Amino acid sequence: MSVLEAISAAIGSFAIGSLAAYLIEQQEEEEEEQQQQQQQLEQELEMKEKQRKEEERNKKNNANEKSKWRIFKEAKAEAAAALPPEAVKMYTRQDVAEHDTIDKRVWVSYKENVYDVTDFLDNHPGGRDLLLLAAGKDIEPFWRLYQAHVNSDVAMEMLKTLKIGELDLEKEPKVEIDESDPYKNDPERHPALKRHSAKPANMEPPLSLLRREYLTPSALWFVRNHSPVPIIDGATHEITIVSGEQNHENLNLLRTKAVINLEHLKKDFEKKTVVATGQCGGNRRGGLDLIKKSSGTGWGEGAISTAKFAGASLRDVLEVHAGINLHNYERLGIKHVIFYGADDMRASIPIEKALSPFGDVLLAYEMNDCDELPRDHGYPLRVIVPGHVGVRNVKWLSKIKLCSEEADGPWNRGIAYKGFGPGYSSVEGLNIDSVPTMQEMPIQSVVAEAENVSLSLATTSEKDEKKRTVQTSAKGFAWSGGGRAIIRVDVSANNGLTWQTATLKEGSDQPLSKAWAWTFWEIDDLEVDATHLKPGDEIKVLVKATDASYNAQPENPESIWNLRGLNNNSWHAFTVKVEE
Amino acid sequence: MSVLEAISAAIGSFAIGSLAAYLIEQQEEEEEEQQQQQQQLEQELEMKEKQRKEEERNKKNNANEKSKWRIFKEAKAEAAAALPPEAVKMYTRQDVAEHDTIDKRVWVSYKENVYDVTDFLDNHPGGRDLLLLAAGKDIEPFWRLYQAHVNSDVAMEMLKTLKIGELDLEKEPKVEIDESDPYKNDPERHPALKRHSAKPANMEPPLSLLRREYLTPSALWFVRNHSPVPIIDGATHEITIVSGEQNHENLNLLRTKAVINLEHLKKDFEKKTVVATGQCGGNRRGGLDLIKKSSGTGWGEGAISTAKFAGASLRDVLEVHAGINLHNYERLGIKHVIFYGADDMRASIPIEKALSPFGDVLLAYEMNDCDELPRDHGYPLRVIVPGHVGVRNVKWLSKIKLCSEEADGPWNRGIAYKGFGPGYSSVEGLNIDSVPTMQEMPIQSVVAEAENVSLSLATTSEKDEKKRTVQTSAKGFAWSGGGRAIIRVDVSANNGLTWQTATLKEGSDQPLSKAWAWTFWEIDDLEVDATHLKPGDEIKVLVKATDASYNAQPENPESIWNLRGLNNNSWHAFTVKVEE
Repeated sequence: MSVLEAISAAIGSFAIGSLAAYLIEQQEEEEEEQQQQQQQLEQELEMKEKQRKEEERNKKNNANEKSKWRIFKEAKAEAAAALPPEAVKMYTRQDVAEHDTIDKRVWVSYKENVYDVTDFLDNHPGGRDLLLLAAGKDIEPFWRLYQAHVNSDVAMEMLKTLKIGELDLEKEPKVEIDESDPYKNDPERHPALKRHSAKPANMEPPLSLLRREYLTPSALWFVRNHSPVPIIDGATHEITIVSGEQNHENLNLLRTKAVINLEHLKKDFEKKTVVATGQCGGNRRGGLDLIKKSSGTGWGEGAISTAKFAGASLRDVLEVHAGINLHNYERLGIKHVIFYGADDMRASIPIEKALSPFGDVLLAYEMNDCDELPRDHGYPLRVIVPGHVGVRNVKWLSKIKLCSEEADGPWNRGIAYKGFGPGYSSVEGLNIDSVPTMQEMPIQSVVAEAENVSLSLATTSEKDEKKRTVQTSAKGFAWSGGGRAIIRVDVSANNGLTWQTATLKEGSDQPLSKAWAWTFWEIDDLEVDATHLKPGDEIKVLVKATDASYNAQPENPESIWNLRGLNNNSWHAFTVKVEE
Repeated sequence: MSVLEAISAAIGSFAIGSLAAYLIEQQEEEEEEQQQQQQQLEQELEMKEKQRKEEERNKKNNANEKSKWRIFKEAKAEAAAALPPEAVKMYTRQDVAEHDTIDKRVWVSYKENVYDVTDFLDNHPGGRDLLLLAAGKDIEPFWRLYQAHVNSDVAMEMLKTLKIGELDLEKEPKVEIDESDPYKNDPERHPALKRHSAKPANMEPPLSLLRREYLTPSALWFVRNHSPVPIIDGATHEITIVSGEQNHENLNLLRTKAVINLEHLKKDFEKKTVVATGQCGGNRRGGLDLIKKSSGTGWGEGAISTAKFAGASLRDVLEVHAGINLHNYERLGIKHVIFYGADDMRASIPIEKALSPFGDVLLAYEMNDCDELPRDHGYPLRVIVPGHVGVRNVKWLSKIKLCSEEADGPWNRGIAYKGFGPGYSSVEGLNIDSVPTMQEMPIQSVVAEAENVSLSLATTSEKDEKKRTVQTSAKGFAWSGGGRAIIRVDVSANNGLTWQTATLKEGSDQPLSKAWAWTFWEIDDLEVDATHLKPGDEIKVLVKATDASYNAQPENPESIWNLRGLNNNSWHAFTVKVEE
C-alpha cells in the first residue's frame, strides 16, 4: 500500500496521538520493503546473469539438437535447390576410406551412397566425436547402435543433403576367401571397435561409445578371443558334467556323468537374469606398458563392458544334474569347477562361488534381451561369473568338471593371470605356484569423457582477485569385483591436490554386496584453477573410486606393475584441452 | 699322484713312444687338478668369510640367548658374592616409576622387590626393546604373557642378581575409590597397552608385542570401549531375539520372541571356532591426523589384534530360535541383523553375512582357549563378524533384532563409520545418507619391526664400484576384510622406487576367500643402498600388500583423508636408524 493509504488506514484504527510513532514505524517498514525489493531485483539480475552464462555454455556445448539439425538441413536443402543437377559421381570404398580426417574431408557411405559429412560434424546431435568414429566407413553399423537414426526420417533426410556420389560396387576388388585360414568363419565385427589383433580377435570399444549406454550394445562389447570362433549348432548342442582329477574323469565324485541338451536346459530351469560387467584382466595394460613392456595385448581402457545376461543358474544345474550342493561338496572333496570351451579354453572358479546362494553364476544363453548370444560372445552357451575376471566367463561352453584342483593350463595354474611384485620382470626363477590366480577383481574407475576447458567462462575468485577459476564436466564408469558396490567417486583437475565427489548415476542402486555391474558417474562443476592457463595447454582429469569394502585405488601404476600386465587400477587420467 | 709316480705308472701301462704325449696330457691334468684345488680352497675361504660375517652379525643381533644369559648371570653372581651384605633399601612404586629410561636407569618391580635391569638390557633374550616396555613398572603382567619366564627358574635366578631393594608397601598412598565414578568397576589393563583414554578405555598394544605371537594374548588385545564395562553374571545371562522396525518390536517377522539362556546356548549348539583379526575402523588414524585433524581417537597402528574365538554359529541360532534361514529371509523382508550390547552400543550387519554358509559369524563365549571372555572383550557373550570392521563385533551382547533397516545411531546410520571424500572437512551440508557405513574393511599392512642398518656390513657392488649396499630385515602383518587372503607383501627401503617381495609366514595357509585372520610376513634380505648413508641417518622401510581380489593399498594418506579418520590403509612406513 502507498503511504497515503497507510495513513488513512492508521487514522481509522489508531489514536491520532500515536500517528507520529506510527508514521516512523511505517517509514521503516517501507524502507525495509524497498530494501527487500532491491535485494529481490539483485537476486533476479544475478539469476538472469547465471542463466545467460548457462545459455552461453549450452550454446557452446549442448545447443538444442533438434533445432540445430533443422536449421542446418534447411540451409543445405536451399543450397542444393539453387544448383543445377549434376551427373552422379562414382567412388570406391577405398576412396571413402581415405577421407577419414577433417583435413582430408570426412566421408561416409550408406546403402551405396557416399556422403561428405565434414560441414555437418559440429551439428551432429550426438556430438562431432561420435560421428568422427564412422569417418571413412559405412555408417550403417553405427546407426544400428542407436535406434534414433533407424526409426527416424530426420537422420535420413539430413544425410540426403550431404550426398556427393555413389559407390561403384563393380569396381570393388573381390575379397578372396583363404580356405586354409582357420579364422575364415569368424563373424564380422563392428567398425567402431579398435583392433588390437584380428586373428584371434582382440578388440575394444572407444570410451565415448562405452559411456553412452549403461548396457553396452552387444556389437560393441569388447572381444577377447584365444582362437577362431567355434561353429556350433545351438539346436543340437550338449554340455556334459563330469568329475575327476586333472586329465581323468569319473573318480566317483559324482553318481553319474550328465549330458544336458541345451534346449532342455532352457526348458527345465527357470530363466534367471544378471546384469554384469565383464573386464579383461589386462584392461589398461597399455598404461603399464608405458613404464616397461609387459606381456599381452596392450589394451586401453575399453576391455570392459556390461550386459544383461539370461540363463540357468549353475547352482541349480549342479544340484539337479550332478547332485552337488552346499551340504555335500566338502565331503566329496570338490574344490573347483572347471569350465571347458569348444575353443579349447579351460578355466576354473572355486566351488564356493558356484554354490553360493549369493554367487549368481549363470549358464547364459541370452544377452541384452536378444534370444541368443552373439557368436563372438559364446553362442550358444557361456558361463557368466559375476564379479570375477573376464577369463572365467568361458564361452562356447562344452563341459563342466567338478574337481579337487583348479584347471591346469595357463589361465589358472599357469602364469597368465598371476600378479607378481613390480621387482619381477622375467619369469626366470619365479615360483609360479606361490601366487594365487585372479578370480575377483579389484576396484577400477575410468574417465570416459571430459569437456575441454573454456577460458572465456573463467571467473575471478571473490576471495582472491588474482585467482581465476573455471568449471568443466566429466563422465565415466567405476566397478569393483566380488559384487562390491561403488560407494564414492572422486575427481580432480589439479593432479590430486584436491578432489571433488562426483554424482553416482545408473547402477548406483545395486545391492552393496551384489553390485555385479558398473556404476556410471558424472560431475558438472569440476573446478579448474585457470589463473595460469593459456589456450593450447592441456590438463588432466583424474578419477579414483571407493568400493563398499572401502578399497581405494593406487595412485601410480609403477607400484603395481607386473610382468603379465594385469590389474592396472591406478588412478585414471583423461587429458582435456584448454581453449579460449 | 706326483709326476714321478705318474711316469712309472705310465711306463708300466703305455708304450714308451707315447710317453711324451702322455706326459703333456698328465701335466695338463695335474694343472687342472691344482686349479680345482685352488678353487676349492678359495670357495672354502669364501665360505669361512661368509660364516665369519654371519657370526659377526649374529653376535650383534641374534647371539645365542641362553649362553649370553648364563655368562651374564655368572658374572653378576660373582660380583655379588664379592660384596659384603648390605641393609635392604626400601623404595616406593613411585620411585620405580621414575626410573623408566636408560638415562635415569631402568628399574622394574616384581613381588615386592625392586630391580635395576639397565645393565641387563642388551642381554635380555627377548631383546632390549621388549624389556624397556616394562621400564618403571611391575614386571609380572609382562611375564604372564610369556610362559618362558613363569615356567623357568632361569629368569627368576637372573632377576635375583639385579635386585637393588624392596617395595615399601606401607608408604604406598591408599587408592581412594570414587564411588560416583561410573568406571570404578572397569577391569585392570595390561601396563604395556598405550592409553589413548582411560574412561572409556581406548588402548592399543605396542607393535613389537603385536608381532610376537600369531594369536594376540588376550591381555594385549586392543581395547575399544564406548562406556564403562558392564557388570554381567554369565551364569544367569540371557539374550533375546526379536524382530521389528526401529524402536518397535514383533511386527510379525518372527513367529515368536526368543529368550535364550547363555548356558543353554553353550549346551544346545555345536561349539565352533574361528581365528579372526579384529581391527578398529580408526586404526592408523594418527597418520591421517598428521595431514589434518580428523575426529576420534588418534590410534597408532595397534588398533588391530587376532584371537581364536569359540561360540555358537549365529546362522544356527537364527534358524533354531527364530526360524530364519536363506529360504525365507527375503520373503519376510529381513535385511539387517542389529546387535545390542549391555553398554547401550548397537550395530548391525547385512542379513546375508549372518546367513551365508561362508559367513562364520559367531556368538562367542571363549577367547584364546580360555573358557570365558575377558570383561574388556565382551564377557560373557559377544558377536564375532569375521572380515568386518571391529565395531560390528558387539560386546556384552544382550539382544538381537531382525530388521528391514540397519541400526539407528552413530555406528551405522550416523556418520561415525562413513567415509567421505578428502574434500569434505566438515559435517555441515553433508548428505550422510548418501554413503554406506563400513562393513568389510580394505586391505591393510604394517611393518611391526625392522632392524637398524649397519654400515659396517655394507659391501661394494660387483657391477659398480661406487655403489655400496647393505641388507636389513623387517617383519610385520597384513590383513584384508571380507576374508580376502593376503597373497603378496612387497617391501621397499628406497621410498617405493623398487620393491622386494616378503615371505608370507603364519596365516598364509588360510582359505583364499575365508582368510579371517592376518598373515605374518618377514624379509631377511631387504636391500638398502648404503652409498650415501652415514651413521645417524634414518631410512624408511615401506610395506604394501595385495589381497586375493588383487586390491592394492593407496600410496599416500592425503587422497584417502576423511573427516572421520577412517580406513587409513596407505603404505605403512617404519623408520630405522643407520649405525656404524
